[in-house]
Amino acid sequence: MKQKMLVISAHPGDFVWRSAGTIAKYVSDGWQVRIICLSYGARGESAAFYKTGGDYAACCEVRKAEAAGAAEALGAEICFSGYEDFCLDMSPERIRKLAEDILAFEPDIILTHDTGKDRVNPDHMITGRAVLEAYETAAESGMKYAPVFGFEPMNPELCGYKADVYIDITEVWDQKVKAMECMQTQKKSRAAYEEKAVFRASYAAGRGGNKGCRYAETFSRFFPICEFDDFAV
Amino acid sequence: MKQKMLVISAHPGDFVWRSAGTIAKYVSDGWQVRIICLSYGARGESAAFYKTGGDYAACCEVRKAEAAGAAEALGAEICFSGYEDFCLDMSPERIRKLAEDILAFEPDIILTHDTGKDRVNPDHMITGRAVLEAYETAAESGMKYAPVFGFEPMNPELCGYKADVYIDITEVWDQKVKAMECMQTQKKSRAAYEEKAVFRASYAAGRGGNKGCRYAETFSRFFPICEFDDFAV
Amino acid sequence: MKQKMLVISAHPGDFVWRSAGTIAKYVSDGWQVRIICLSYGARGESAAFYKTGGDYAACCEVRKAEAAGAAEALGAEICFSGYEDFCLDMSPERIRKLAEDILAFEPDIILTHDTGKDRVNPDHMITGRAVLEAYETAAESGMKYAPVFGFEPMNPELCGYKADVYIDITEVWDQKVKAMECMQTQKKSRAAYEEKAVFRASYAAGRGGNKGCRYAETFSRFFPICEFDDFAV
Amino acid sequence: MKQKMLVISAHPGDFVWRSAGTIAKYVSDGWQVRIICLSYGARGESAAFYKTGGDYAACCEVRKAEAAGAAEALGAEICFSGYEDFCLDMSPERIRKLAEDILAFEPDIILTHDTGKDRVNPDHMITGRAVLEAYETAAESGMKYAPVFGFEPMNPELCGYKADVYIDITEVWDQKVKAMECMQTQKKSRAAYEEKAVFRASYAAGRGGNKGCRYAETFSRFFPICEFDDFAV
Amino acid sequence: MKQKMLVISAHPGDFVWRSAGTIAKYVSDGWQVRIICLSYGARGESAAFYKTGGDYAACCEVRKAEAAGAAEALGAEICFSGYEDFCLDMSPERIRKLAEDILAFEPDIILTHDTGKDRVNPDHMITGRAVLEAYETAAESGMKYAPVFGFEPMNPELCGYKADVYIDITEVWDQKVKAMECMQTQKKSRAAYEEKAVFRASYAAGRGGNKGCRYAETFSRFFPICEFDDFAV
Amino acid sequence: MKQKMLVISAHPGDFVWRSAGTIAKYVSDGWQVRIICLSYGARGESAAFYKTGGDYAACCEVRKAEAAGAAEALGAEICFSGYEDFCLDMSPERIRKLAEDILAFEPDIILTHDTGKDRVNPDHMITGRAVLEAYETAAESGMKYAPVFGFEPMNPELCGYKADVYIDITEVWDQKVKAMECMQTQKKSRAAYEEKAVFRASYAAGRGGNKGCRYAETFSRFFPICEFDDFAV
Repeated sequence: MKQKMLVISAHPGDFVWRSAGTIAKYVSDGWQVRIICLSYGARGESAAFYKTGGDYAACCEVRKAEAAGAAEALGAEICFSGYEDFCLDMSPERIRKLAEDILAFEPDIILTHDTGKDRVNPDHMITGRAVLEAYETAAESGMKYAPVFGFEPMNPELCGYKADVYIDITEVWDQKVKAMECMQTQKKSRAAYEEKAVFRASYAAGRGGNKGCRYAETFSRFFPICEFDDFAV
Repeated sequence: MKQKMLVISAHPGDFVWRSAGTIAKYVSDGWQVRIICLSYGARGESAAFYKTGGDYAACCEVRKAEAAGAAEALGAEICFSGYEDFCLDMSPERIRKLAEDILAFEPDIILTHDTGKDRVNPDHMITGRAVLEAYETAAESGMKYAPVFGFEPMNPELCGYKADVYIDITEVWDQKVKAMECMQTQKKSRAAYEEKAVFRASYAAGRGGNKGCRYAETFSRFFPICEFDDFAV
Repeated sequence: MKQKMLVISAHPGDFVWRSAGTIAKYVSDGWQVRIICLSYGARGESAAFYKTGGDYAACCEVRKAEAAGAAEALGAEICFSGYEDFCLDMSPERIRKLAEDILAFEPDIILTHDTGKDRVNPDHMITGRAVLEAYETAAESGMKYAPVFGFEPMNPELCGYKADVYIDITEVWDQKVKAMECMQTQKKSRAAYEEKAVFRASYAAGRGGNKGCRYAETFSRFFPICEFDDFAV
Repeated sequence: MKQKMLVISAHPGDFVWRSAGTIAKYVSDGWQVRIICLSYGARGESAAFYKTGGDYAACCEVRKAEAAGAAEALGAEICFSGYEDFCLDMSPERIRKLAEDILAFEPDIILTHDTGKDRVNPDHMITGRAVLEAYETAAESGMKYAPVFGFEPMNPELCGYKADVYIDITEVWDQKVKAMECMQTQKKSRAAYEEKAVFRASYAAGRGGNKGCRYAETFSRFFPICEFDDFAV
Repeated sequence: MKQKMLVISAHPGDFVWRSAGTIAKYVSDGWQVRIICLSYGARGESAAFYKTGGDYAACCEVRKAEAAGAAEALGAEICFSGYEDFCLDMSPERIRKLAEDILAFEPDIILTHDTGKDRVNPDHMITGRAVLEAYETAAESGMKYAPVFGFEPMNPELCGYKADVYIDITEVWDQKVKAMECMQTQKKSRAAYEEKAVFRASYAAGRGGNKGCRYAETFSRFFPICEFDDFAV
Repeated sequence: MKQKMLVISAHPGDFVWRSAGTIAKYVSDGWQVRIICLSYGARGESAAFYKTGGDYAACCEVRKAEAAGAAEALGAEICFSGYEDFCLDMSPERIRKLAEDILAFEPDIILTHDTGKDRVNPDHMITGRAVLEAYETAAESGMKYAPVFGFEPMNPELCGYKADVYIDITEVWDQKVKAMECMQTQKKSRAAYEEKAVFRASYAAGRGGNKGCRYAETFSRFFPICEFDDFAV
């Protein structure tokens, strides 16, 4: 039976820019990856779309299609919660619904937004906190405690983010490129995330000892490591 | 060729109370473990000894012998720097000497004191910072970047310590007991560290999923993980 | 007229594990102690109960009875708000209701959950923050500013908790044991909290100078001390 | 066309005590200043009023009139959202409404409550966070990114506030006095804020080099400076 | 036998501006108070003196006399270590000397500089850290663990200082004024510290419930409270 | 008379990678810029040199020449303190010497290393702290309080660095390239810093509103802004 990764993303682009390489890597290692996308991002990060004259409903359709395309390019499943973004309202009811979704999937690893003080995108903080509440609710109902990792925010230098793990995505970089190319509404972000992946790789290749690393993504870790018998260095 | 762990301890007792289980575990896994003990702890943590009427030189001898006994019980080598404690003076010269020692040993893992704000034992903070400087000096001279882990301080609730890794030491608990019993000068600490190991195990056995864990030690991690290809959960 | 302590607990077990000794001590000193228990904890921390085949309503009954028994063992009153747990929804209306309850009781001391980043139990953070809002609302309506203390979370090493006060509960330890024994649904927690009380006492007996202290509980303090004319050391 | 400053205040007094000097200064420099006052503060900070025997509705009227008087004394416009205070409920709907108000005004500078841990007034934290969410929502709809500054809380020594900017209000001090005098319900606060303005000026006049500074207000800055070509020292 | 307070001050003015009221209060309560003044402050905070044409040696004499006068006005003893200031060099030898001085006096309470990030006066941070090291060294030699309190820095809004205790100095205010008047070299600081004492009193008189408080000093607390049997509210 | 910027760099490369664009920009605006380079970096960051077979003295010469070439390319003066690096020993004597150098130059702006927890390069932290002490020493001797800015460390995601200012260096990018090309010993760093400059520009061009910004450097700010009459947005 396959191991499973669950990715919970506030908007359609988030899982692509922040974790597409990691998703592709796990898929290529034989994992089942499911993405829950809480909103269509039709308020936020859609400025480019509205300049073309489309309306809100059209924007939802376009961005949903972009995200579905990116997920397909990565070999992952995707579900849409359809909540309005900016500002995302994660009520207790929605948190319980999310807990049920987590429990039903039984993930071995969860990726989502870091709970840090990301001032430039409150929806991301709201998502990180809601996932934490849903996770504990699911755990109280018997879910195995899967490790949870946090996305690196767009501008870590603004919000006190600290990387706990660097993932080498060099071998799946082409797939991340394909996924990024699906995001036509936000296409101006593509270059910046390529610069970032290269910059992060300079650490992994240098101090990290992964000499061949040319592209990397980083994540924070929500809980300490204790599943294994050693330091898992 | 054996993998190597280097443990740098401010006083004779520190490596015992904080990491004897982890040392024993790695030794039993076939690693070579070397301990560098910076002082004999003849000023600090030796109150019990002086009540017996001994002097400073005698205290150094006794505590050195205790530490050597504990190292032997764990199957580890030990070297003594012989610096005075309280307050430990880690001058630039001593830091360069330590860098040479690190470089000569070529460790795969380093354990030492956390650099956090341990108000109740400044020697521990001084050691953590000195190791960090020595480590970077050694790295600039060509040492491989080994991961560095920080001891849990005696009272984490006073100093903002956060555990990054829990190590299950259940199978080597008997050896930790033997090492602790060598520390006759500080024998009143023994019970408290047993309580702590049991309490830490309650987390590892519960949320950590190590159901059989009955004793555990925790450590902080100085740098992010990036040597491996995945989350090493 | 008696002095009064108010304890606000997210779930039935919280006031027992974290503050039963302190409650018993104040009761034995002649204080009136009232506990407000916000939920029956029938979603969280009730896994053991459901294995016996009971349903949600039965769980509420059982856990309510356990908490009532523990309160009685301690000589304290208890009221139940009956809110659902995981995740606890402290809406503005409920916060105002809580403010009225605080105002009606006129406490001299309040104990509740710390507002720190307790990632492993979001209900606790939600409670701490709600009490803070309710407290300020009550204060604006004329309540005397009583000092507020925060429970030590289960795993302080995960959430940056800092202890401000250690309470010696050696003399009332038997009563805490009786209260803990009422919590049959969570009986596996009992040993861990005993280990913790002993470990905390090692600090109070050593640096704290309470030589006879064998069991202790710790608390954070929400506001500075300023009622008295001196350092209240 | 005039430059515009938007001030978002939880209660009627907040914009007066914390920013009246800065408002007056910008007005005297030719700016248009609009204040959005979210509540009438009829629960909080109105204890003095109720001692006179008035009811809630009367309190709303009185405090609205005081705030309107203060705004007029400063040469600023004021709008009232009319939300209940203690505790202020900034629901997603209200945040979207606020985003529309921000977007409609197109401010060049925004002043509001700091998002820091102001334990003594949760309404202030709730306001700071709501403004941040509303700001990002407005920005996603095309608003220019105006810099946002946070009020100094009443007691910065309780909540980790750090000043990023000191504003010299010496020349408009008389106007701040007039505005403060409008706040008859809270008149006991007046002296404390004068002491504070003088104390803050001692830093600005000393290290800041504004030798003539006799009264000052401080603010935190939500985002880094990057509009200009230099350090804007 | 008298209880004893030890005050360790980096420069001659520090103990006056930051703690003269508290010293006077304890003296009036029958305590023996000793001040250790590490430097004459002849480099720092002496700009006014040099404008009068005096040299370094003369400055040392003048400032020593001012501090001795202030101590006398407060009824306290004073000793001078005579170290150079800016930047104060607290070598391991000096820390051991300080440990001996602490041990010889056997204080019941210690006041000194907070160890926080006081960017505007590094000598203060150096002193706070040196006292902490000396304190632990003395404690290892058998000193009773006395509580340690940190001075409020000049500008808490710059350095993350948090007040743990407010001391009402209303009754001894006249003595603080006399002590401040001894500091002729720094006479421009006098007004600012009066403003601050009044502002701090506004908190103590309001939320603190000390209705008659008109002047206050605040302090941080280095270690938790555990000597007493209750919350010492 | 020209305005003056002082740049204090631990090693030869630091001022180039972290601030060459800003230096070039100020030079082109007519400022006099002086660089104080504390060491030749012959231990740290010189691994590439030693592979060519050179010795320590030769390395000092080569790296000094590289730094001098870079300074010349930027139109700045440079002085070398000649201290050994890894680990840099900033004794009280050296700090006083640095204070004299600062005082002699009378800078209007100072750039140096951030004092944050840069675990991967302790020399940088040591420099930042030494500059702070030297700065206050100089200020006590009458120096005007110039604003101090901190370099962005190589890996801000490891050390809690927060950017306070973004400087647009697009127009002087060619000069930064020329300066970087002088650093032949570290030439593998060049690409990483170009990626970083581009990534930082993505923030300045987006939220910062500098649409034309293609390359940027960021800095932290050591003290609040208070020289000017407004927010200097």
